[in-house]
Amino acid sequence: MTDTEQEKPTSHMTLTVRYAETDGQGVVHHSRYLVWFEEGRSDFLRQRGLHYSDFEKAGYFVVVAKAEVTYKNPARYEDVIIIETTLERMRGKFLEFSYRALGPGGSLVATARTAHIVIGPAGKPCSLPSEWVDRIL
Amino acid sequence: MTDTEQEKPTSHMTLTVRYAETDGQGVVHHSRYLVWFEEGRSDFLRQRGLHYSDFEKAGYFVVVAKAEVTYKNPARYEDVIIIETTLERMRGKFLEFSYRALGPGGSLVATARTAHIVIGPAGKPCSLPSEWVDRIL
Amino acid sequence: MTDTEQEKPTSHMTLTVRYAETDGQGVVHHSRYLVWFEEGRSDFLRQRGLHYSDFEKAGYFVVVAKAEVTYKNPARYEDVIIIETTLERMRGKFLEFSYRALGPGGSLVATARTAHIVIGPAGKPCSLPSEWVDRIL
Amino acid sequence: MTDTEQEKPTSHMTLTVRYAETDGQGVVHHSRYLVWFEEGRSDFLRQRGLHYSDFEKAGYFVVVAKAEVTYKNPARYEDVIIIETTLERMRGKFLEFSYRALGPGGSLVATARTAHIVIGPAGKPCSLPSEWVDRIL
Repeated sequence: MTDTEQEKPTSHMTLTVRYAETDGQGVVHHSRYLVWFEEGRSDFLRQRGLHYSDFEKAGYFVVVAKAEVTYKNPARYEDVIIIETTLERMRGKFLEFSYRALGPGGSLVATARTAHIVIGPAGKPCSLPSEWVDRIL
Repeated sequence: MTDTEQEKPTSHMTLTVRYAETDGQGVVHHSRYLVWFEEGRSDFLRQRGLHYSDFEKAGYFVVVAKAEVTYKNPARYEDVIIIETTLERMRGKFLEFSYRALGPGGSLVATARTAHIVIGPAGKPCSLPSEWVDRIL
Repeated sequence: MTDTEQEKPTSHMTLTVRYAETDGQGVVHHSRYLVWFEEGRSDFLRQRGLHYSDFEKAGYFVVVAKAEVTYKNPARYEDVIIIETTLERMRGKFLEFSYRALGPGGSLVATARTAHIVIGPAGKPCSLPSEWVDRIL
Repeated sequence: MTDTEQEKPTSHMTLTVRYAETDGQGVVHHSRYLVWFEEGRSDFLRQRGLHYSDFEKAGYFVVVAKAEVTYKNPARYEDVIIIETTLERMRGKFLEFSYRALGPGGSLVATARTAHIVIGPAGKPCSLPSEWVDRIL
């Protein structure tokens, strides 16, 4: 990782795997990671004093345009998982995040990348208010 | 079952158990039945020419006040399940439904009962419009 | 609440409502509470040095026989929820828990009760090993 | 699309959006599409006389190694969705599927691609039995 990459804004949150998140294979269902990464984004904002629920109250919706997950090692019920969320890019109405889910012993459970578009109060793509952008960066 | 009970409005829908609905025990997670019974209600309305999405567009929300599920036999991935939905009671703003989930060979998978309150366009409990009530009954 | 009731074994855990737990009504979907209460049970055991995953490794499965939820006030995205889990009864192969979900300002979001049966390594209902029972009580 | 591409094995299944699949934005949550595409694969196999549950009974697990979803247009409660599932590649222990989710009026809701690895009875990657491979192709 280069110095530049290390400076990208990042946050870490911890969760414990829920029983309902496992499937018949005894491991976390592959769709559940997207739920975790979404909470990674929520947490990323909260650590910067922002709440995504305030975005929506102000008429801004951040929608998911694309999601890509690579599954490395299965996660199991009661595993403690660290979700690392990094803002990769924010340019106008476009946002991109990357993620790593780390399991027991720091093992890599999954990596992911999501692309988002901001929809403004007028129902059209637009930039986030600059006050929020400043806090995010 | 008495003659009176047989006349209660009822509908039947069929679904196939999804892999993501199973949990680490290899059977359908107990929370998933509430999702199925909700679709039982959706189907009950559709069979009477009504769409719950139209209710919400008109400002009416049917909220769940109470739910009770009794689990009889586990359901497994790919099982074909029949959801039987019966309107037990509709009085003003109150609705009550009962359900049976039947699995392969007609085995009883679960029974349930839910109680609902209608919230009207003014944000307060109220009866459904009489046109819809007529169709439901 | 009587003194006797206050002595029932109880645990408290905290969670933050996830975006994926909300539905089109903008509030937490009524099926999601069962997932929270299940984690309440997981946490209840962990606070007593037990792990439900160890139960399953030893061949014991605690299955849900009945669940009953009463919905009092809606919970919303980013609400911090306290799940209070109380062991109401443990007699041989039968277990009963009650729950309260408390939202912002201590408001009552939902109450619930679940009944369980222990299935042992022989695939039949049986009591939990006495070592675990002692820890639970 | 070239002739060659048109010959790739494909299946179509239909589903109706469930209320519980929507989120606070009033549209289907982006994690739910992976559940639909998984059922697309189940259906793909069933249309060829195969059942994924039989795979697991025989000790074969098809795990998800990678998933990529592009979200085009939101899907809403009660929308009827067609899931088109295409086997893109099957070489030894590797499988790749692509998907299209089509909404009302044939509108494109989402496209996706998933990569899978077959884990055999010995717990290691291996090819599927040739009898199944023949049926799949």
